[in-house]
Order: sequence, then structure tokens, then C-alpha cells
Amino acid sequence: MADGKIHIFDTTLRDGEQVPGCKLNTKEKIELALALENLGVDIIEAGFPISSPGDFESVQEISKVIKNTTVCGLSRAVLKDIESAAAALKHAKRPRIHTGIGTSDFHIKSKFNSTREDILERAAQCVKWAKNFVDDVEFYAEDAGRTENEYLARVVEAVIAAGATVVNIPDTTGYCLPHQYGEKIAYLINNVPNIDKAILSCHCHNDLGLATANSIAGVIAGARQIECTINGLGERAGNTSLEEVVMVLKQHQQTLGFYTGVNTTQLNPMSRLVSDTMRMPVQANKAIVGANAFSHSSGIHQDGFLKDAQTYEIIAPEEVGADGSKIVLTARSGRSALAHRFQKLGHQFNRNDIDVLYTEFLKVADSKKEVEDTDLRELATVYEATVVSN
Amino acid sequence: MADGKIHIFDTTLRDGEQVPGCKLNTKEKIELALALENLGVDIIEAGFPISSPGDFESVQEISKVIKNTTVCGLSRAVLKDIESAAAALKHAKRPRIHTGIGTSDFHIKSKFNSTREDILERAAQCVKWAKNFVDDVEFYAEDAGRTENEYLARVVEAVIAAGATVVNIPDTTGYCLPHQYGEKIAYLINNVPNIDKAILSCHCHNDLGLATANSIAGVIAGARQIECTINGLGERAGNTSLEEVVMVLKQHQQTLGFYTGVNTTQLNPMSRLVSDTMRMPVQANKAIVGANAFSHSSGIHQDGFLKDAQTYEIIAPEEVGADGSKIVLTARSGRSALAHRFQKLGHQFNRNDIDVLYTEFLKVADSKKEVEDTDLRELATVYEATVVSN
Repeated sequence: MADGKIHIFDTTLRDGEQVPGCKLNTKEKIELALALENLGVDIIEAGFPISSPGDFESVQEISKVIKNTTVCGLSRAVLKDIESAAAALKHAKRPRIHTGIGTSDFHIKSKFNSTREDILERAAQCVKWAKNFVDDVEFYAEDAGRTENEYLARVVEAVIAAGATVVNIPDTTGYCLPHQYGEKIAYLINNVPNIDKAILSCHCHNDLGLATANSIAGVIAGARQIECTINGLGERAGNTSLEEVVMVLKQHQQTLGFYTGVNTTQLNPMSRLVSDTMRMPVQANKAIVGANAFSHSSGIHQDGFLKDAQTYEIIAPEEVGADGSKIVLTARSGRSALAHRFQKLGHQFNRNDIDVLYTEFLKVADSKKEVEDTDLRELATVYEATVVSN
Repeated sequence: MADGKIHIFDTTLRDGEQVPGCKLNTKEKIELALALENLGVDIIEAGFPISSPGDFESVQEISKVIKNTTVCGLSRAVLKDIESAAAALKHAKRPRIHTGIGTSDFHIKSKFNSTREDILERAAQCVKWAKNFVDDVEFYAEDAGRTENEYLARVVEAVIAAGATVVNIPDTTGYCLPHQYGEKIAYLINNVPNIDKAILSCHCHNDLGLATANSIAGVIAGARQIECTINGLGERAGNTSLEEVVMVLKQHQQTLGFYTGVNTTQLNPMSRLVSDTMRMPVQANKAIVGANAFSHSSGIHQDGFLKDAQTYEIIAPEEVGADGSKIVLTARSGRSALAHRFQKLGHQFNRNDIDVLYTEFLKVADSKKEVEDTDLRELATVYEATVVSN
């Protein structure tokens, strides 16, 4: 546990791809998998082989082309699922089977009509089955977010004893608060006797907008893997955003002491590739990868930013492969941003000039959402003509 | 502090509206302000009156029509800003002036070329100016997220002594981790002697995807107001999402003990109104208000969901005014979802029928992103014809 490396487990091709409208063909999935390997993720969850022939084929073909990254296939705690995952992963250099079962009382009673003891046995059993095919077996305790800690600890102990190398603690419904999720991970670290034989993984959903914070709380408490997707795609409100957790860990590396293998300059290109391929637009105000993530429009902010970018910007756009910071001129912009833009357009105005021009600028700005360079050129031309004629 | 009421301060019309492309005219702003009052927010920040004649007019007109909600105008720590805000708010039933200055060393040095002592004096001075016009004065300590706590406590004490009723602690650059932001609020609660004379407010930005979690950490630590916007609109990656913090507080009311005055059934209609009026699309995987926030597509999820919605859904869609939960049929859907949809379309199939139909269904599903009812009707017709002919 001394090492601060956080493993990034990307599930864009599995939890992300099951979103309405996001279905990909095998060719598209291979392209994304290669881009994810290039981005530097540690594990690519490539699909759920038993779920459809198309999914099986995708996992199989991805396994053939990926060289260094672990390729993972999902399965339920069912022998035929595990056999299917193993077959699909046959050509993978580093195969992982991800198997598991629901452990909350909601799932045990409503979904399985079963008992805690029975589920505990099935959990250990599915890991043993998977170990017949691969060394690297990850177990998921579905709805762990709502599973009582003492029982969850027994399940985790049993699956590690059965050979699980990673144990995934999903907040399936996105219910936990960060301190609750962190306490759950800490409880397991402190109460599972064989916890040093495996690493814990955070798999959070964003139903309440807390997936990023919950994942970070998890690693602070001792987890060493985060399951996430590009652009936060996934069931309902989505999964943890890969770009957000990676940048939180990078920005706070000095205080938290964690790092990942992700090449952050690829985050924006990767986001655009996923958005285009999966036909899922990213909103302008999305952290790290939104079109406006590095735009400054208020006068106060623009003025400060032009004096020193650090005043309003904690991440340099080039660090995450975004286009340079933008100064957008609107009715909220101030004199310094206006003067700066005029200068870029080749007009040197003094303070008095800018005072006059600013009043004219505001009239234009109040009538439209963004003042364009053509508007400014017109203002400058009219003004210069007036000054000369006086 | 005994009361668990959290004041919701909406700044969609100020921090949200300064986003590139979001500029609104006065008529649109009035429409949104009335909708916000109907939603049940406690304070509407209507604009920044000194910034432009259009903004002044909007604050003035909103002040005339809003009956119960506090209407707030922004200003810098400058007398003419405060006079302008006071003039714009003249007709408000409950006017509030929001004034302040940057308190981090970044701001003091780079932006103001000043000293801590000078900024302390200017902070108290601007509150005194504002108190000449209104009783309710909120002070913002810009970039408080990066302001050293001991100095920040001195600023907070001075502005409360000068008459501030609310002190806003903005994480202007979206830099803080939730536990850091919570510790900052707790430090102020514990170290500002006159803290009982005012309430602290959380104003968080989403640059690292942590705005919601930071705001919740703030109220857990003792703050009693959250500044937020509909759909999380705002500078760069945006502000805290109103819909997210309101639903976190509601979902966790029993453990946290907080409540708001927001009518949650209006959250989705309000989100659509803002998105349409401000021309800012909301991504499908946005918490609470995204188009997919209540969609289930994986087979495992659909099966569990159909047995008991609570298995995968913590919020009922009607609670937030969303359309009912959707079961979307894709290659990841299972037999139970397929049988359920056939039943809705008037076809009663037994288990053996479904086994045969499911194979045919997967062929269709692998070739397109979503299987429509017309596809299913065709499958059913072909199948029924086969069965009859045998």
C-alpha cells in the first residue's frame, strides 16, 4: 500500500457503451481501445461477452490488438458467463475476468430471492471458476454502496481467499456521500484480514453528482483502482469521469501523494473521439473537456486572468490537450479585455480612447450574445475616423 | 445554527449568464426569475448592475416583479458599483447587495498590487457603504479557496463587524477537495468570534468536478447557504448545480438533517426552460436533469429494475419532474426486459417463446443502437406466423 499508483480502469466500452444510443460496432470499439491504450489507462473493460455475439467478437478482437494494457471482460456469477468471458479473452496478453453478484439486501431479496449465506457462497464460487481460466480475477459486490459493512467485509474476505486480485466496491445507485463511501473503504481496509492480498476498486455512479468526489474519497481511504469512463458516460447519469479523477489526483499530487499512468495531454483529444464515435455530445460546462472549460467572460475574471493566468486558472489548457484559454467578449467584459483584443487586432488605444470605445462596445454587447472581431473592427474604424476628423 | 434550513442562492442570471453565448435580454431574465421564485429558491442573484446598462435594467425590472424571494445585485468593493446595485434594487421587496474583493495572495498581489492590511480595510469599507442602502449585505471573499485560513478569519470577522449578514467563501478556481473545503468552513465557524451574527455561504466552481461535493462538505461543516445555478451553468466548467445539491440534501435528509425550500418536482421543467432560453444543451448523462438520468439499458439492471425499481433507482423520476423511467432495448438488454416490452405491445409469450425471440432480437440489436417497437412487432409477427404454420 506504500505505492501511490492509482490504477485507472476504463469502462467506456462496457458501462459507457450500454447507454441508449451509444452502441458501437467492433471496428469502432477497436479504434477506441487503441486510443485508450495510448492514453495510458491500466485496464480496458472491453465488454460483456455473454451478452451478445457482437459483444463477444469485440472483446475477442480487442484482445488481439492490445499489447500492454490489461483487457477485461465482464460476467455474472454464472459459469457460462465466465466461460464466455474466458473464451473472448483467449488472445489477450493480460486478460482479466470481472465477475460478481449483488450483495445489498435490496439485491439479495428483490433480485435473487436468496439469502446472505447463499450469496456469500456464490461469490467465492464464481471467483474460483474464473481462476481456472486466468490469474487476474476481479470481483464486484454489486450495490456495495447500500450493503451493510460487516456482511460486505465477509464477502470481500471470502472472494480474496478464493483468489480475487481486485475487489470492486460499486456504489451502483450513486447513493453515497463522499465521507460515507470513504468510511466504507476504510472499514474494509481495517476489517478484512487478508486485504493485503488484493486491491480495492472504486466504481461510482453519478446520480447525485458525487461520483468524482466518492472515488477520490475511496482512494484516500485506501482503494488503489478507480473505474471510470471518458466524459462520464454510463447508465443513467453516468459513471465517474476519467478526466476528472485523473486531474484531481494530478492537481493534488503533492498533498495526496497519488499518481496515475495517464498522459493528460491526450484527455481532450480522447474526449472528442469518444463523443464523436458514440454520438454523445459533451456539454460546454463539463469539467476538463467541455468547450467552455477554459473560457473567461466576466470582466473581473478577464482582467485578473490577463494579469496572471493563475488568478483564475488552476490547470493550463495545454496540460489536458485543450485549445488555449479563450477570452470571450460579452456585456460582462471589462476595459482591459477590450483593450487586449483591440491590441491583438492591431489597434493601439490609450486609456481615454478605451473609455469612449467601451461605452460603444457595451451597446453592441447588450444587443448580442458575443461581440465578434468584425464588430470591434467596425467600432475601431468609426472611432479612428471621428478622432481624425476632430 | 440549530435549524437545518439551507438557503438556496441561485446565480443562474449572474454567474450563469456571463457564460459565452448565454446573454439574455431583460424579458428573458424576468421570465427565468419568475420561474426561479416559483421553484422556491431563497435568493435570486439577478445581475451585476454596474457592468452594463442592459444588466442594470434587468435587475431593476426583476426587482419590480419578484414578490417573496430576495433579489440580489453584485458589485465590486467600489462605491460606484454599490450605488448602482442599490439603485437597480430600489423596488425590490427584499433587496440584497453582494459585494466583495479577492483575498488570496494571488489576487492581492497579481490583481490589486496591494497588501493584506489594505484589502482587509477595503473589505470592511465596502460592507459599510452597502449598509447605507440595504440591511441585507453579503460579502464575498473572492478566491477564499486559496486564501490562508488565519487571514480569511480576520476578513470574515471584520466584515461581520461592519454589518455583513452573509459571508460567501468562494472556491473561485474550483481547486479544493471536499475535505479541504469543509475544513475551511469549520475553521471559520470555530475561529471567528462574531460568527453567530452571520451565515456562511458556499460558492463552488466545478473545474475538477467537485462543486457539488464541496458545497455539501461546506454545509456539513456549518455553512447555511449554497450558491448554485440551474444545470451547473457558469464560468469555465460552471458552478455548483442547483438540482444536484438540492437532491443530495433531500436524499440524505434523515442522516444530515438539512432541508431546502425548493419544490423538487419543478427541477426538470426549470432545467429545460434554462437550457432552451440560454441555448445551453444539457448532456444526456447529467445528474437529475439529463435525458438519460432515468434510463436503464443493461440486461442486469433492467431485470432488477422490473422486479423492484429501488434496486437501481434511488430517486423516483416524478420526484424531480422527469418523465417516467425508461427501459431502452439494446444488445445489452435481457430476456425479462424483452418479455416486458412484448407484453406492453400486446404479445403474451411464454419462456420458450422468449428464448427463441431473444436470439432474433440480439441479431437486430447488434446491427442498430436501439431496438424500436416497430422492430419488435415485426419479430413477433414473423414468430407467430412460424409457430402457427408448424
